Amino acid sequence: MQTLSTNKAHGGVQGVYGHASMATGTEMTFSVYVPPHEDGRKLPVLWYLSGLTCSHANVTEKGEYRAACAEHGVIFVAPDTSPRGDAVPDEDSYDFGKGAGFYVDATEAPWSANYRMRSYVEDELPALIAAEFPMADMARQSITGHSMGGHGALTTGLRNPDRFRSISAFAPVVSPINCPWGHKALGRYIGEDRADWRRYDACALIADGARVAELLVDQGDADNFLEEQLRPQLLRDACEAAGIDLTLRMQPGYDHSYYFISSFLGEHVAWHAARLKA
Amino acid sequence: MQTLSTNKAHGGVQGVYGHASMATGTEMTFSVYVPPHEDGRKLPVLWYLSGLTCSHANVTEKGEYRAACAEHGVIFVAPDTSPRGDAVPDEDSYDFGKGAGFYVDATEAPWSANYRMRSYVEDELPALIAAEFPMADMARQSITGHSMGGHGALTTGLRNPDRFRSISAFAPVVSPINCPWGHKALGRYIGEDRADWRRYDACALIADGARVAELLVDQGDADNFLEEQLRPQLLRDACEAAGIDLTLRMQPGYDHSYYFISSFLGEHVAWHAARLKA
Repeated sequence: MQTLSTNKAHGGVQGVYGHASMATGTEMTFSVYVPPHEDGRKLPVLWYLSGLTCSHANVTEKGEYRAACAEHGVIFVAPDTSPRGDAVPDEDSYDFGKGAGFYVDATEAPWSANYRMRSYVEDELPALIAAEFPMADMARQSITGHSMGGHGALTTGLRNPDRFRSISAFAPVVSPINCPWGHKALGRYIGEDRADWRRYDACALIADGARVAELLVDQGDADNFLEEQLRPQLLRDACEAAGIDLTLRMQPGYDHSYYFISSFLGEHVAWHAARLKA
Repeated sequence: MQTLSTNKAHGGVQGVYGHASMATGTEMTFSVYVPPHEDGRKLPVLWYLSGLTCSHANVTEKGEYRAACAEHGVIFVAPDTSPRGDAVPDEDSYDFGKGAGFYVDATEAPWSANYRMRSYVEDELPALIAAEFPMADMARQSITGHSMGGHGALTTGLRNPDRFRSISAFAPVVSPINCPWGHKALGRYIGEDRADWRRYDACALIADGARVAELLVDQGDADNFLEEQLRPQLLRDACEAAGIDLTLRMQPGYDHSYYFISSFLGEHVAWHAARLKA
């Protein structure tokens, strides 16, 4: 792991790091905020998965999470959203290819060589964090994310209920099976057999038996993607049928931007911190 | 005035606006955050002047001021740092020309036609804010800024003690007369007669009799520009000689970036709010 930059912020250290990923076959960049803490103290870890077109940088610069992480003693990890580099297959669209990995392991050529963001986020990067950040208490992890990354947070969390103590999301894609972004991405990354999509669909995972006690979701009601892509009602229905305690907060006047996320990310940090310390 | 964008954030509205400026002879862009408030309520105004290379966008995206402005009911105005556009004279350097107006009214050709940021920030933009934002209480204004904009905040505030109830700064250029950035910028914008520089130099203004009750300055001790360009000791000396109550906080480990500013901008908002509401 290479340190690309560190800056003191809110009493802790905001770092950006790079490493050669086995999962993606590329150099990957991610950010970690370590709040102020006593030497030897172990701190819980909150993962944040970003949305379409984003890298680690968007939330790192615009997320306004550090004050809450410093207050509650939480490490904040922000991975990239896809493999990068000239050798990585891509296409000229904002919702597929680079910046749009959808947190799946692609099985279809030419994407399967590099687009393995499930393995990267679920296995490889946690192992790297455990090895390189000795203050990270990997027995206490939670996960959140935005839009495509909200989908990533919900599905990663639902597939690994023993690893994540709590799951939240901002304006998540709740069911790729039921929206155009999902049809395009999953169809091309993992093929047209939709049975293979179900482990990458929060609503399908719940219908198929995945269980967590509760979920927290914030959704702006002025979000341009609400009706066609995000469809939070599908998650509400799935949670009701499964007896999962979903807190779905429709936030009046908020859109899909980081102005929305930064308004509530501190509250999510506090919500996760309460569960990580319970 | 044209509205370029508005986004709901922290319960209020973060807007970006454009207008044709008489002072600079160009189209100018600025941002205004209006916190949540009751209809008809008047709110105090905090000005934030940005540093070299910045526009309104840096602090608007990275400043982390909105939570505090929402809590304390303060409007936050962030102007640009220079005129912009193809017709505006410029040169290929980060510390002079576009992005580096130094909050002076240039008197030297070719700069004097457009580089009139003192008039813009001190006269024209406040009049526009008063006209276009009826909830802005122009009888209650304060000012802050970063680096070159810290210089702008100190000098604008010291020249107008009846208008600004309080003045603070982050890593300010405290004396352009005594640093390379100042020599270059003031020498070319307003000529080599240094008597003309004194109204654009916080320490000289104080030595020449400008008085305010107190100043708040945060300065990172890991700031690369500390020794050569910023030189806070000069301000300390000037304030001691004048009996101005300077709170100069040397912040250990902090650099010159927005990671530093965003760590303390909320505290500055609260500090100004206490004085604006006194």
